[in-house]
Amino acid sequence: MCYIYAMRTYIHELKENVGKEVSISGWIDVRRDQGKMIFFEFRDVSGKVQGVVLPNNKKTLELCKDIRPEWVVNVIGLVNKRPDKNIQKDKLNGDIEIEVKDIVILAEAKELPFELNADVNLDTYFDTLPFTLRRPKAKAIFRVQACITRAFREFYDSKGFVEFQAPKLIGDDAEGGANSFDVTYFKHIAHLAQSPQLYKQIMVGVFERVFTLGNVYRAEKHSTTRHLNEYTSMDIEMGFIKDHEDIMNIENEMLAYVSDILKKECKVEFELLKSTIPEVSNKIPRMTLRDAQKLITKETGKDCTQEPDLEPEHERWLCEYSAKNLDSEFIFITHFPTAKRPFYTYRDEKDPTYTKGFDLLFRGVEITTGAQRIHKYDDLVSSLKEKGLNPEKFSFYLQAFKYGMPPHGGFGLGLERLTAKLLGIENVKEATLFPRDMNRIDTLLSE
Amino acid sequence: MCYIYAMRTYIHELKENVGKEVSISGWIDVRRDQGKMIFFEFRDVSGKVQGVVLPNNKKTLELCKDIRPEWVVNVIGLVNKRPDKNIQKDKLNGDIEIEVKDIVILAEAKELPFELNADVNLDTYFDTLPFTLRRPKAKAIFRVQACITRAFREFYDSKGFVEFQAPKLIGDDAEGGANSFDVTYFKHIAHLAQSPQLYKQIMVGVFERVFTLGNVYRAEKHSTTRHLNEYTSMDIEMGFIKDHEDIMNIENEMLAYVSDILKKECKVEFELLKSTIPEVSNKIPRMTLRDAQKLITKETGKDCTQEPDLEPEHERWLCEYSAKNLDSEFIFITHFPTAKRPFYTYRDEKDPTYTKGFDLLFRGVEITTGAQRIHKYDDLVSSLKEKGLNPEKFSFYLQAFKYGMPPHGGFGLGLERLTAKLLGIENVKEATLFPRDMNRIDTLLSE
Repeated sequence: MCYIYAMRTYIHELKENVGKEVSISGWIDVRRDQGKMIFFEFRDVSGKVQGVVLPNNKKTLELCKDIRPEWVVNVIGLVNKRPDKNIQKDKLNGDIEIEVKDIVILAEAKELPFELNADVNLDTYFDTLPFTLRRPKAKAIFRVQACITRAFREFYDSKGFVEFQAPKLIGDDAEGGANSFDVTYFKHIAHLAQSPQLYKQIMVGVFERVFTLGNVYRAEKHSTTRHLNEYTSMDIEMGFIKDHEDIMNIENEMLAYVSDILKKECKVEFELLKSTIPEVSNKIPRMTLRDAQKLITKETGKDCTQEPDLEPEHERWLCEYSAKNLDSEFIFITHFPTAKRPFYTYRDEKDPTYTKGFDLLFRGVEITTGAQRIHKYDDLVSSLKEKGLNPEKFSFYLQAFKYGMPPHGGFGLGLERLTAKLLGIENVKEATLFPRDMNRIDTLLSE
Repeated sequence: MCYIYAMRTYIHELKENVGKEVSISGWIDVRRDQGKMIFFEFRDVSGKVQGVVLPNNKKTLELCKDIRPEWVVNVIGLVNKRPDKNIQKDKLNGDIEIEVKDIVILAEAKELPFELNADVNLDTYFDTLPFTLRRPKAKAIFRVQACITRAFREFYDSKGFVEFQAPKLIGDDAEGGANSFDVTYFKHIAHLAQSPQLYKQIMVGVFERVFTLGNVYRAEKHSTTRHLNEYTSMDIEMGFIKDHEDIMNIENEMLAYVSDILKKECKVEFELLKSTIPEVSNKIPRMTLRDAQKLITKETGKDCTQEPDLEPEHERWLCEYSAKNLDSEFIFITHFPTAKRPFYTYRDEKDPTYTKGFDLLFRGVEITTGAQRIHKYDDLVSSLKEKGLNPEKFSFYLQAFKYGMPPHGGFGLGLERLTAKLLGIENVKEATLFPRDMNRIDTLLSE
């Protein structure tokens, strides 16, 4: 059978093993027959290396007869320096190759639907994800994503935030009905959470500072490059704040930390995706919605000063403006109208028709919504009523406020959208491992 | 308004501030009027401290008139040593108190349903979670839980595993229909994932070693101390293994790491819960199901050697046996019958009616199920058919195997159950932040 994995050398370690016999394991990336020799590219999680089976190794040539791309093998071979003329500079293992001594087939592959790196349309790409995710570009995207989640958690851990697991199955007290998915829950109807909002606020009463990462759900009937019906939300909530500025500050600091970690660990991935890791200034610029709209109106000549929110084109414009004039690819827009924000959003004392809330824009889109929250029970009940919501339905959540809640606030950050924007990926679904939209759950849904 | 939080001193830091004026923020834990003085216990996330308002501080006495437990305050006060006779040893801040100079009410609380630490039945406890989670015992449970998740991730990060986000909304290819919740998904019916199993296997083809943490769902119609309808699963999957022994080994190592971290960081919490952090041996004992059954039969006189699985009483018996005779609170039971294990479980070459799978038992219950998996496409298709499942429905997943998959395996570990068992909590729902069962989603479901 196969050789012992305990002895396994990863392909990126081969250059330290020149002249030695090693055991490597992985996939066939490429096979090329040349005269009586067979050349392979072997691929494991750490990289690729060229292998050659020499004409005198008849037994192994026979074993290799049927081997094709994506077959899984264990190889015993000798690590050789390549002759100078064959050296491929700037390529991992471009100066070495493996002389294959023996090979064991761990698993065969059936005929491939297309070459791994072939150009295919997006539907075909998604149809064949268990295969296409093996592409270097896909791997790079999800390595970066894993790095972001780790850095996010590390940062908030270091700031005394406690992680918690938010439920996703929720009852009647859904934030809003229209966009929620129904679940048949025994004899009842439950819903899928659109955010961990109400739970993270409750948890401020327990741990003061909390964070959580998890799936959230939006039953939006759109299948665009921006929409996902299931995505990952990275959420924090923090007590004893002065106002929403504290929340922007701690998000700012987190983004700087994430950027530093990416620079240390994901340089290769950003090069592959031809994108740049953003510089995060110590103080990301901040602008009220109305100031932003005045600026847009002044610069573009189109009056948008009465609009209650930013149009997608205005988000793009502001990002370009900020990058060019404020030296920051990130920009906070604050003080959206109370009428356009959820019931729990804190109102500005100076003008309660505006909120102490913010959006964070980055590379053309909003990646975060955050705010100070209402922390006084009576104010919260009034706000629910003003929004036409029934406080009875929120009775569980409202207990947190009935029994004493500090001033607090927080934000949510969509992991897939952030990943996409960081890496310059057009369609957020490509930055989602197994994207769900109204037409697809893994496979296309039948009509 | 309130004093500046930037100056905030946490209560556990007060002992380093004797003789100084500080600003603390938090909740009123206790109020006690004594003559013309008012005594408070102030509570923040870091601990408690006694405060006193002296008779000569008339303005503050007036401000404190209505203050009751769970009101949220900001206090300016002087940290004093207590007189020797009033020192409470072995208690945080038992030797100091705060002389309250000024107080700001950040939020009031309505009348409490009962004293925070009052004995209440479990239904009342769950009805009032936004309040009862503030108890020291509840906080300890979820601090330990946060510590477990962090240690779990740290360990697998350090071993080259890549974290991924598994979808929870799944289509037709559910592992099994009976226990799955239905979701109305636009014009279709989708399901909530019972595990990330199929996705983590797919991801072995991408990153070789992966882990994921997230909610999973079981539509079991039981409301017992063991069942949850939504819980958190910590999952790994690992390629290029020899067999299931590799999976047990890496779980063993992880558990030792988690235990070390808990010893470093959660001593106080385990003391509070009167539980002990288990020692994890370098080699957790391993026994086949049949050997375990022979042992039980021999020792108890009741023949269980023909049973296809372990009864709860046998799990308890084996844990006690292992703790007493094998010096381990953990024990792996291997080689369950193929008929009782899922279709993807690898069969033992020596006797294919048994699997290369295992359960991990700890303090009386199974906390993990794991196994080597079938990695060859044709074997997997056969296994699906043998189990009466339609390979067509698994076509997305099967691509991973069609296009070459290494030998691999993994396990899943229920976070809430592990937390409960570690801390000696009878009912797993108490180790679940917001437990869902067939009768309750936050509040009791109406009939």
